[in-house]
Order: sequence, then C-alpha cells, then structure tokens
Amino acid sequence: MFTKPTLILNERICRANIEFMLAKARKLGIELRPHFKTHQSIEVGKWFRDYGIGKIAVSSVPMAQYFASDGWIDITIAFPYVHQQAEEINALAKSINLQVLVSSIGNAKLLSKSIETHVEVYIEIDTGQYRSGLQIEDIETVNKTIEVIQSNPNTKFYGFLSHAGHSYNNQLNRIEQINSEATGKLNRLKKNYIEQFPNLKISYGDTPTSCACNQFDGIDELRPGNYAFFDMQQASNGICSTSNIAIALICPVVAVYPERSQAIIWGGAVHLTKDFYVDNQGNKSFGAVCKINPDYTWTKPIEGMYLESISQEHGLVRAQNCEAIRTLKEGDLIAVLPPHSCLTADKMGEFWVQGKGFISMMNHCK
Amino acid sequence: MFTKPTLILNERICRANIEFMLAKARKLGIELRPHFKTHQSIEVGKWFRDYGIGKIAVSSVPMAQYFASDGWIDITIAFPYVHQQAEEINALAKSINLQVLVSSIGNAKLLSKSIETHVEVYIEIDTGQYRSGLQIEDIETVNKTIEVIQSNPNTKFYGFLSHAGHSYNNQLNRIEQINSEATGKLNRLKKNYIEQFPNLKISYGDTPTSCACNQFDGIDELRPGNYAFFDMQQASNGICSTSNIAIALICPVVAVYPERSQAIIWGGAVHLTKDFYVDNQGNKSFGAVCKINPDYTWTKPIEGMYLESISQEHGLVRAQNCEAIRTLKEGDLIAVLPPHSCLTADKMGEFWVQGKGFISMMNHCK
Repeated sequence: MFTKPTLILNERICRANIEFMLAKARKLGIELRPHFKTHQSIEVGKWFRDYGIGKIAVSSVPMAQYFASDGWIDITIAFPYVHQQAEEINALAKSINLQVLVSSIGNAKLLSKSIETHVEVYIEIDTGQYRSGLQIEDIETVNKTIEVIQSNPNTKFYGFLSHAGHSYNNQLNRIEQINSEATGKLNRLKKNYIEQFPNLKISYGDTPTSCACNQFDGIDELRPGNYAFFDMQQASNGICSTSNIAIALICPVVAVYPERSQAIIWGGAVHLTKDFYVDNQGNKSFGAVCKINPDYTWTKPIEGMYLESISQEHGLVRAQNCEAIRTLKEGDLIAVLPPHSCLTADKMGEFWVQGKGFISMMNHCK
Repeated sequence: MFTKPTLILNERICRANIEFMLAKARKLGIELRPHFKTHQSIEVGKWFRDYGIGKIAVSSVPMAQYFASDGWIDITIAFPYVHQQAEEINALAKSINLQVLVSSIGNAKLLSKSIETHVEVYIEIDTGQYRSGLQIEDIETVNKTIEVIQSNPNTKFYGFLSHAGHSYNNQLNRIEQINSEATGKLNRLKKNYIEQFPNLKISYGDTPTSCACNQFDGIDELRPGNYAFFDMQQASNGICSTSNIAIALICPVVAVYPERSQAIIWGGAVHLTKDFYVDNQGNKSFGAVCKINPDYTWTKPIEGMYLESISQEHGLVRAQNCEAIRTLKEGDLIAVLPPHSCLTADKMGEFWVQGKGFISMMNHCK
C-alpha cells in the first residue's frame, strides 16, 4: 500500500492529546489558544473545533490566511510583525479578529505607519530565551512601544505575549524553574499595567511548560502547539510518553547489514528534517524505530534501535547487535517516530489517516 | 517585491558551476553524470543540457519519473533498490536507459524477483562511509550478488558504484586522502572483474572529491550534484569560494536588538532546514548573511555576521558588535547563504530567477 516514505497521523492519539490539554486548561481556568503551526492542516483544525476550540495561534500571515479560509475568526500571529506583509494583514483584519506582535521599537514604528484596519497588538516580551521580544526589565522601551502602538487609532494595545522557548530540551525540574521565573516576571509586568489597561491580556505557554507545570499566576491564555502530535524530543524529556506520539514516518527498509548491526531505510533529511534527540542510552538519535501493525498503527519503539544518521534520502538504523538488526528485512516497512514533529509534518506536507486517506496541509503538493 | 522568505537562484553563477565541472571532467577524460537531487528542477536541468550533458543521476524513482517526463533518457537512480517501487521501475525502464543499485544481497534478491523490463544494475560498494553498499573486501558477497543479478535475464550487471560521502565536511588534505583510498580500492575491484565483464563501469564522485582532486584512475564516470549551487559547507572547507554559491534565501528583517548585537529575521528551519557549518571564527552557523543589491544579486557575506540559531520560522542573526547589527533595520531584506543547498532547495520547492520569475521544482507548491 505505501510505496514511499509516508507520514501517518493516528487520529485517536491526536484527539486524546487535544482533549488532554483542553481539560488541563479548563481545570486551571486559563483560556487555551492552540498553536496550529505543528499540524498546519484545515482538517486537523476541525478536530480541535469538535471540542469547542475557537481561538488559535499561527506563525505567519500566510498561515493565518489559510485558517481564516476555513472560518477561524480569532487568530494570533505569534511571530514579529513583518512589514512586507502589511497589505495582507490589512486585508485579513477586515474579516477576523487578528492579533499581531511587535517585538522591537523599530518593528512597532513600521506597524504603526502601515496598519489601516483594526488589529489588536501584543508587545512580545523576552522572558529569558533571548530570541525575539523586548527585555522585560526595560520598562522605558515597553512604555515607548505602547505609545507608538497607541499613536495609530487602528492598532490597539492588547497585552503582552511571551514564548519561553528555553524550556525546550530540558528535564522536568529545569522546566518548572523556567516556568516559575517567566510567569513571575509576566505577572509583575501585568500588575504594573493593569490599572491603565484593565483588559490587558497575558498570552504565554509552550508544550513543555503547559504539560509539565501547574502554576500560571497572572496568565490569561496558554498557546502550546506541539502537544497535538508530540515527538521524541518531548518524550525523551518526560513531557509525554512515546504512546502519546501521534505521527510516524513509514519507511521502506532497503538494505540490512548484520555484520555491522546496521540497516538502510528510505527516509532521510528530506522527510524527517535534521533535528535529533538524545535517547535514554545517551545516543544522538534522528528517530525511534517501531514495527507497523496490520491496521497501520505502530508498536512501541524497539529497544536499542534508532536512526544513527540521516542524509538526503538515506536513514541509517543502528541496532544493539546483529540479531536485533536481523529482525528487519529488505522489503519491510517500518515506522519512525520523529525527533521534532513540527518540522517533519511541515516537510512532508500531508498526512495519511486510517479511514480517511490523505489529508492535506497548507503547503500540500503531490 | 519579495514579501516572504524566497529562494533566489543566480543563473549566471549556476551556469558557471555547470561549465566548470564539465570542463574538468573533459580534461580528465571521465564522463560526467551530474546528480540532479540538488536542484530537482526540469528548468535547471535544461541548463545542463545546453552544455551537452545527456546522462544524469537522481536519488529516487519519483525523481527519475519527473526528469524522464522532460526527455532525459539515461538515468541512474543512485539509491538502493526500493522493492515497493518495482512496478514504477518496470514501467519507466520501458522508455529509458535506467540504471539501478543493489546494495545488499537481500536487496539484490528482491530486485531479481521483481524486475520484468531490461534494467542495468550497479552493485553499490561502500568505500569507507559505512552507509550503504557491500564492503569492498567482501568478494564472496560481491560474487554472490553478481550471480543473483545474472539469474534474471532482465537485469544486467553493469558495474560498481560508490559514493565516498565521508569526504563531506573535511578539509582539502583529508579529502585527497579519502579519494586516493576510495579510487584505489575501486580500481583494484575493476581489475578483478574486467576480463569477465569487459564493459564494466565504475561510477563514483561527489562534489568534494570531484572539485578538489585530480586523480581518478579506473573511474569511468563522476556523479557530483551539489556543485551546481555549492553552499557554505563547501565554502567553509575550501571546495568553492562564497562567490560560487548560486542560491540565497531572501529574508525580511523583523526585529533588531543593538544591546545584544542580535536581530531576528523571518527565515528559519522551515526554509533553510537545520544543517549548519563552522565558520572561520569557529562559530556554528546556520547561514551567512549578505546584503542584497538592487538587481537581486547579493554581496559577499558580511564579516562576523551569521545565523546563530534558527527555530521554526525565526532566524537569530549575531553580529560582532552593536554597530554592526545597526546596519540592519526592521523592514530590510537580507540574503542568507545556506549551509546545505540541497536541503534548502528541496524545502523551498521553487526558485526565483532574475528575468524568469519563479521556476518550479519536482515538489513545487504555492
């Protein structure tokens, strides 16, 4: 049935992940705005809608346009304002509630100059990742940025948004610590501005902190995305179990070398991309290897077997010994659990779902 | 004009690269069979044809089908035989000269069982990369594999093919050494079989060895691919100059942080993929940063400025100091030279070419 590397999405696991996070957010009393950059699929988006999700985050203007075309009417573009996209933002904001980010004073000035439709504007705050956003201690720049936003009657200062991306690839106790620092800072910031802006929103939360932590004082909404699929990076840090991983790349086995406990699969960097994780034996792994069941679900990862390296189309599987590698044969199909599901999904561009066949993504092509 | 990350292909540089390798192969008296996995574009393929190239290599059956659709009639699929693709191989081999690879005895048995159209079969030989192929010293398995191939009258034993992929990411003297070892082994193998198979071909050669080396005793054809575009991995190892790099990703600057000598661009892992190189200062870099000229060519890389990290859509630019980063402003476009052009081109799916607009690739989608 599958004649080339194919990305299978297990709907049952994905729906369980969607429900898990929604239940957690409800218990915490925090609004959930899932980030759709992981699946980038209108079809998968409908699964979220089945559970009452109405607000989403995306990572680009084209992605906002794509989901708006399916009736999503409240979208946060969780990426710094791109001046070259002003025209598209103005057009999109006519028909939906659109939140955009400004991440530097220069960024805010360009936005203020170009926006002609009502948009809600978050100031992005860096809580320690040192990627994008104003430094939380730099109150002078925060105040100036609010001023710039308010100088244009179309752009409404909406609140502060932060992505504590430094929580990724850490163990649980370090994630707790990062979360406590980041939410503490955001809560103090909120208290400083809430009198002046009583409707001020604080948007926060990635998959590691949203899964692992339970204290989010002052946070109004959580914005995790990866949890819909999870992956081996999350599993290796204890954020999820491997049984929560909802996607696997089906790959043909093309050569087996028992004498060096290795095998080659058709499944490489053009399918999985080149992210990796460190497994429980300390190995740098480009994917965990599973057997496929007759109904196209997959088994638990095979102990001690992993993708040791990948090149453009080749994946090199390493097993513990020659006996273990002999369980694979040329002509078999195996399932690989990806290190980073967002990048693998983005690269593959479509999912195969049992009972549904292929469902498309934003950049789908055949 | 460019409102989002866009991959520009400089035709003049690409054509010069195509000519350079052809001139070198002619001088050496070795046939050139360029690998088209780097560009994956019928349009760019036509540029090769302009210089008299008639034989190509590809990395998958779908890629062979794609180029066959544009009239290429001599194609080597330089990837182990995929049993699930037997039907497609049988169909394709009816209309073109098709060479396929067997890379293990099990792989050869499946091929022999399933091929019903005349195909030429290379035995893939591992010359030290330890990826795919029979070990060159294992004459017993080589002999058995030839027997298996010859047991099917449709599959003709054609010769030995090797990819010395361990030449990548090395400095020149080490590349020379790898080349000398690999070609020495292949030449001895050829001498062992040439009486029995007088038309035996030896196919070999990647971009590092084909560019850097001049001794290819016994080699009948060279199969480099990356040289059409080159990239920062090749430049950082002295295989090419940065002025030979034919593609650059155009990226909007979205936030500048002089206080930490950093800036954010829209250009991340979903555009460049996550390969990297080590620059001349010892920095791990996900791309070199250049200014764009009014005619959409680009300058030399800016000294000391590079992509320090990338996430899904963000690229984090590091400069030597705050003055250097101030030369970038929000709203600017910059050009990023990719670490690995094959993966960046594959991800982007199309090229913009001055005077031609967008030209498509195999997996193009808009």
